[in-house]
Amino acid sequence: MNRVLAHTGARYPIVQAPMGWIARSQLASAVCEAGGLGIIETSSGETEACKAEILKMRALTAAPFGVNLPIRFLKDDAMLRFICDSPVKFVTTSAGSPAKFIAPLKAAGIIVYHAVPTVETALKCVAAGVDGLVVEGAEGGGFKNPEEVSTLVLLQAIRRVTDVPMIAAGGIADGKGMAAAFAAGAEGVQMGTRFVSAAESPVHANYKQAIVDATETGTLFLNRKASPCIRALRTERTKAIAEAGLMPPDTFARILDLYFGGDMEAAVGLAGQTAGLIGEVKPVRAIIEETVAEFHAICGRMGALAGGGF
Amino acid sequence: MNRVLAHTGARYPIVQAPMGWIARSQLASAVCEAGGLGIIETSSGETEACKAEILKMRALTAAPFGVNLPIRFLKDDAMLRFICDSPVKFVTTSAGSPAKFIAPLKAAGIIVYHAVPTVETALKCVAAGVDGLVVEGAEGGGFKNPEEVSTLVLLQAIRRVTDVPMIAAGGIADGKGMAAAFAAGAEGVQMGTRFVSAAESPVHANYKQAIVDATETGTLFLNRKASPCIRALRTERTKAIAEAGLMPPDTFARILDLYFGGDMEAAVGLAGQTAGLIGEVKPVRAIIEETVAEFHAICGRMGALAGGGF
Repeated sequence: MNRVLAHTGARYPIVQAPMGWIARSQLASAVCEAGGLGIIETSSGETEACKAEILKMRALTAAPFGVNLPIRFLKDDAMLRFICDSPVKFVTTSAGSPAKFIAPLKAAGIIVYHAVPTVETALKCVAAGVDGLVVEGAEGGGFKNPEEVSTLVLLQAIRRVTDVPMIAAGGIADGKGMAAAFAAGAEGVQMGTRFVSAAESPVHANYKQAIVDATETGTLFLNRKASPCIRALRTERTKAIAEAGLMPPDTFARILDLYFGGDMEAAVGLAGQTAGLIGEVKPVRAIIEETVAEFHAICGRMGALAGGGF
Repeated sequence: MNRVLAHTGARYPIVQAPMGWIARSQLASAVCEAGGLGIIETSSGETEACKAEILKMRALTAAPFGVNLPIRFLKDDAMLRFICDSPVKFVTTSAGSPAKFIAPLKAAGIIVYHAVPTVETALKCVAAGVDGLVVEGAEGGGFKNPEEVSTLVLLQAIRRVTDVPMIAAGGIADGKGMAAAFAAGAEGVQMGTRFVSAAESPVHANYKQAIVDATETGTLFLNRKASPCIRALRTERTKAIAEAGLMPPDTFARILDLYFGGDMEAAVGLAGQTAGLIGEVKPVRAIIEETVAEFHAICGRMGALAGGGF
């Protein structure tokens, strides 16, 4: 039995990443309705809006969904308490040590996966009692660990030290990436950039088109020597940040003008290297069904080699 | 039929990377004898020594082997002419445009794969008439392209635009990595760091032990804004280079003292992120046989999902 399916209750082990402001009920419910696991973000810090989005999910889908709690970004334990009192049964934690969150979440009967960028963090999370890990390779978009390790290496490195289930994140946009992640030990995948570009994603068409237009070298890893490190689309603004080395403090001030206003130079458009694999805006259902079909086709092709061929 | 096997004549589609000074007959012949494809380096620039190593291979193994021609590093066409007149049937080119090399190599009946870090370079190579590509992800060791793209993303991105056979390089140290690469579209894998750490590798025990001791975050990507970019083991010297941003011109002056003298601070010990996956020094035959067995076991596990499972 696939443990990610057992833990999430979804039809497919395909999770939508919790992008700030973007991962709300419109996108997450489309993912759930198509058989994946939609996740509602709370990293925007808009506590009341996120609570409302979580409540809205029940009206939009009968399928299970999850919530992300980015520990370092939470002002207080209001969101934690809200989740513990809600019917939510699956939480991903990220950005900080989950140790203090585990006990209340587990007491509320909630499954907890923590997002990890290194083996060291993975071991701490397992010791703290997480049920599984979101294994985040450096090729993924958004907020990143400054010590870059690729998804391919990180999945294998973590599997060497623990047997908890892994959801692979970073570098995956379809069934090829999903099959590669499973071959390396994952039991599920998380896709962010792919779902940002989906028809049901609430972002401006310019942002989706920028993802479609980007090549595999179309993102930059920024702010390596400070915090937070991010991976974002290559634009005039991000090229200037890369050149300077440091990210100005107002970098995210106008993020909503980029996400929803379509001004791609207003802030930084977070995205992973998979932008180079995404050729068109598609409905969530098509993305998920094509991913699953391609995954199974590759499983068949791999299975044909099991007898000793190549 | 696996095209990498057809092109190389090896028993397994496992290629040993052409590490300067290290990829000589002792290591390459062990790889060939174990069923992989050993490759003799010429990037050291020691033309006469490399010619002697190529001649020596015939005494050490009856199996086919290859030679690497790093175009930008070749002082003249002496090595190219030597290879064209030799019985060598498989060449990898790297570090520069292979366009001018293709015609003489093909005229000599030699199969040519070029090592590429981006889709753009891959398309140029295919247009120039290469038989296949070594697809080099950023997690690999040694000389790198400053625009980092992970092996997982790069394999998929290149497969979107061309159907030539791909040998995946970077992030692969065993059968898990090999299976993941095949799932993403590769028909062969190249391993560098893993073979540097092998029992038959000519390097000093300290270098092998440094690879064994390294974690998955144990390498640094250096000299991003200059040339050449490299990935090397994290040491006092490489940490200082990372901090400064630029690599001093004498960085490689004492490379032989590191490789063969065991002074890990004498220069920079090139290695990939797979250093974090390598737990012990093993003979080449064990590395290759375990890789093949694990690859086929994973193919079996993947095949069991082909009917619709996860």
